[in-house]
Amino acid sequence: MGARSFDYSLHVPYAHVDKMGFVYYAHYFVYFEMARSAMFRQVGLPYMQLEERGVLLPVVVSHCEYKKPARFDDQITVTIHNLELRGPLFHVDYRVRCNGDLIAQGYTDHVCMSHSGRVLKPAKELIRLVEEDP
Amino acid sequence: MGARSFDYSLHVPYAHVDKMGFVYYAHYFVYFEMARSAMFRQVGLPYMQLEERGVLLPVVVSHCEYKKPARFDDQITVTIHNLELRGPLFHVDYRVRCNGDLIAQGYTDHVCMSHSGRVLKPAKELIRLVEEDP
Amino acid sequence: MGARSFDYSLHVPYAHVDKMGFVYYAHYFVYFEMARSAMFRQVGLPYMQLEERGVLLPVVVSHCEYKKPARFDDQITVTIHNLELRGPLFHVDYRVRCNGDLIAQGYTDHVCMSHSGRVLKPAKELIRLVEEDP
Amino acid sequence: MGARSFDYSLHVPYAHVDKMGFVYYAHYFVYFEMARSAMFRQVGLPYMQLEERGVLLPVVVSHCEYKKPARFDDQITVTIHNLELRGPLFHVDYRVRCNGDLIAQGYTDHVCMSHSGRVLKPAKELIRLVEEDP
Repeated sequence: MGARSFDYSLHVPYAHVDKMGFVYYAHYFVYFEMARSAMFRQVGLPYMQLEERGVLLPVVVSHCEYKKPARFDDQITVTIHNLELRGPLFHVDYRVRCNGDLIAQGYTDHVCMSHSGRVLKPAKELIRLVEEDP
Repeated sequence: MGARSFDYSLHVPYAHVDKMGFVYYAHYFVYFEMARSAMFRQVGLPYMQLEERGVLLPVVVSHCEYKKPARFDDQITVTIHNLELRGPLFHVDYRVRCNGDLIAQGYTDHVCMSHSGRVLKPAKELIRLVEEDP
Repeated sequence: MGARSFDYSLHVPYAHVDKMGFVYYAHYFVYFEMARSAMFRQVGLPYMQLEERGVLLPVVVSHCEYKKPARFDDQITVTIHNLELRGPLFHVDYRVRCNGDLIAQGYTDHVCMSHSGRVLKPAKELIRLVEEDP
Repeated sequence: MGARSFDYSLHVPYAHVDKMGFVYYAHYFVYFEMARSAMFRQVGLPYMQLEERGVLLPVVVSHCEYKKPARFDDQITVTIHNLELRGPLFHVDYRVRCNGDLIAQGYTDHVCMSHSGRVLKPAKELIRLVEEDP
């Protein structure tokens, strides 16, 4: 994904904002997933197709650093700026921006897993996605 | 469920409270489900067993009326005070209390459905649950 | 809102899909809210402005009927097809479509409330929104 | 919190389980929060009291590693096994167990913040909580 990156934008729902008026921290991981799923759709590799081929991508590590809050109705943009294969792990890096500011950044690590729970080698579609710089 | 009822209590997580300081309205339906699942566990009919026997219970109608707000860390109690079979529908009535006040009430209607999506006659375990007044 | 209606679309996140493979029932109420908030933004009346003017719009009744399931990555569209003032209540009707099918319909009733919890007469902006057919 | 630790248990709601049949990864952060809030209640320092005294505890870093899945209706236990002050950061370590297995572990870092967004020195209640080994 070297020179390119993938952007996904949404408006913060009221449902996600806590009594401080800020997006509750766990929702960023849902935004990360929405960006991942949108990226897979955009590159012509819907995640459903991977699952139907028997490849699940459960998260094994998740991490987020929060710099500034996002508020209700703010338009935020999640950028996937790096994809890597690190041995069996599919690694995804995210940045979240709001009104021009970096407000959060984080990553998720995934394994390729069969429906029966066996860890698989990275699916060829993922290798292509990472290597060919979609 | 005539003379008896089933209670389920929890403390409101910070995650569920909106910027007004109140539990966001959709979460009540999750509390209804947590009470349903706890009731099924308590009567010795874990919902997982129903699913493994091929009986799913998707919701076909949901309804809630909100009387007073619940706030972060409040202990709330969901009472399932009525179960009925209405033809193919499994009907469940809920009341939610907080500090002695009725704060919400609602219901859900479910059908028995096979894994392939066919509507089934009410499972015998549900008939017993409704009729024998667990 | 007589002749016009308002549409809001999203792709179903993995986060919202249950082990049956269907969108969990409570999330429809979040989709209703996202459609409401998008409508308020579009008509130039962001809900934040109402709140800053001291008018909150808590939900007092919510209702949804589920016709067909939605699945992961499906694009669903929430249509707000009716707005009414019923005495102190602001009533909103929703339909949800997926791949051309009606999959759910429901409504929410709201009151105008001050930050101190007092019920207010409907805000003039809401009256205009309902009457002038945005 | 040297010799002691704090446990919080819950049954996994249907709402939190994805189409793989596993708890969706973001919910672990809600479980972490529910454990934190329960710990604050138990040590006689409800988080609401901190907020009313003007001390907010927003999360600045969150991290979780997932070892094994949890499934619907599983009883899981979140253990807070370490609390530290690292300069301005309040650091909390979590382990999640299910049926005797370690299924996840992670941490959150918080700052003490005023309602206006200013970073504060750690509140004396937090210092006591960390040092006096509640």
